[in-house]
Amino acid sequence: MKNIFIASTSTIHGSGYLDYILDDLKVFFKDAETILFIPFARPSGISHDHYTEKVSNAFSKINIKTHGIHTFENPIEAVKNAEAIFVGGGNTFVLTYQLYKNNLIDILKKVIKNGTPYLGTSAGSNICGLTIKTTNDMPIIYPPSFSALALVPFNINPHYMDPDLNSKHMGETRETRIHEFHNFNTPPVIGLREGSWLKVEGHSIILKGSLTARVFEYNKAPYEVKPETELNYLK
Amino acid sequence: MKNIFIASTSTIHGSGYLDYILDDLKVFFKDAETILFIPFARPSGISHDHYTEKVSNAFSKINIKTHGIHTFENPIEAVKNAEAIFVGGGNTFVLTYQLYKNNLIDILKKVIKNGTPYLGTSAGSNICGLTIKTTNDMPIIYPPSFSALALVPFNINPHYMDPDLNSKHMGETRETRIHEFHNFNTPPVIGLREGSWLKVEGHSIILKGSLTARVFEYNKAPYEVKPETELNYLK
Repeated sequence: MKNIFIASTSTIHGSGYLDYILDDLKVFFKDAETILFIPFARPSGISHDHYTEKVSNAFSKINIKTHGIHTFENPIEAVKNAEAIFVGGGNTFVLTYQLYKNNLIDILKKVIKNGTPYLGTSAGSNICGLTIKTTNDMPIIYPPSFSALALVPFNINPHYMDPDLNSKHMGETRETRIHEFHNFNTPPVIGLREGSWLKVEGHSIILKGSLTARVFEYNKAPYEVKPETELNYLK
Repeated sequence: MKNIFIASTSTIHGSGYLDYILDDLKVFFKDAETILFIPFARPSGISHDHYTEKVSNAFSKINIKTHGIHTFENPIEAVKNAEAIFVGGGNTFVLTYQLYKNNLIDILKKVIKNGTPYLGTSAGSNICGLTIKTTNDMPIIYPPSFSALALVPFNINPHYMDPDLNSKHMGETRETRIHEFHNFNTPPVIGLREGSWLKVEGHSIILKGSLTARVFEYNKAPYEVKPETELNYLK
């Protein structure tokens, strides 16, 4: 049974890394003594070691030991044997490129579908969707595909932002960008604001946190859904 | 001799489409009675016909007749025979996908290097760089490559925005994104603010408009350059 925690962000303004969800993660990872961390997204270009150290500091607060996947000789075996998995934020293109390069897409899908608890934040949440086509990141490296883990039957847009009505900037709003996505793709998109997450348990997909999320369905006006809404009707 | 006008945006806040550069375009396109418009980037999913109509209305003010490339049976011949070319903004991935699909990359490079005057705005400016890896757009379609026209020896970041120091949003700033680009790529990037453009004449590349631009070179601190700066030292 799937057991997935899809968070918009690792960090909310004015609080430490993973702090705002640490109590929930303690429950979510209650059966795990160790977690396999995948540092491939490298926010600000941080090294795999430094990123793993940062994550290790956070997970030590809930008595979980962190192992970076880059320290294993065989990353596929590391995924197979993991008690729990965390994929952190950074650049979604770099993350996707590295997952394909290390042949990790299929094995990740398999173990997560079979119940290995998975936490994603930001880029690590983007890859839970059907494709990475609704990432906000800069395409700094060319991955062999935009197809992602497809753990949920829609796409994620993390760090969702409402249009700034006072802005004089002429770049596209997030809503315009997702509207453009729907000119070429039909799957729904969930705009997850910072502080929100999706909790997937088997076939159930529930919006968590205190904020509403914005749902974009093909050929429909976008709409808000409240916390605790069951989202498994989307496809 | 190359003759290229690379604009950050088509439109500045509070003014009509192309209005802020129309006087300059009149001079730039002084020898052209017609312009070939490439509407592939489809901002907000606008149709090729509607987009061409919008452009046609703007160019009619400076007595230039607009032809959409989608109305030609042979787009490669249309590029070869064009007196002048304009590639408008929208989604850079959609634009790039369509340019490859229509086999237009090589012929565009060739005619522009041979002197056909070229105007790009936003997505149409992104493709003047080495790659589209510094676009701000959402990757809503998977192009066969991120390589672009390479008309200048660096990358463009149009609609460049300074960090908002009051923001509580945790998504990456533009500067952070470009810094991440330089973890995987070495070419310089020019952050062109809305209202700025680059004027390329042969080997000369001059910053135009009233604003400074931000230059990001590999392994160097970013810096500002003033209008009228010659940028052909970058590579």
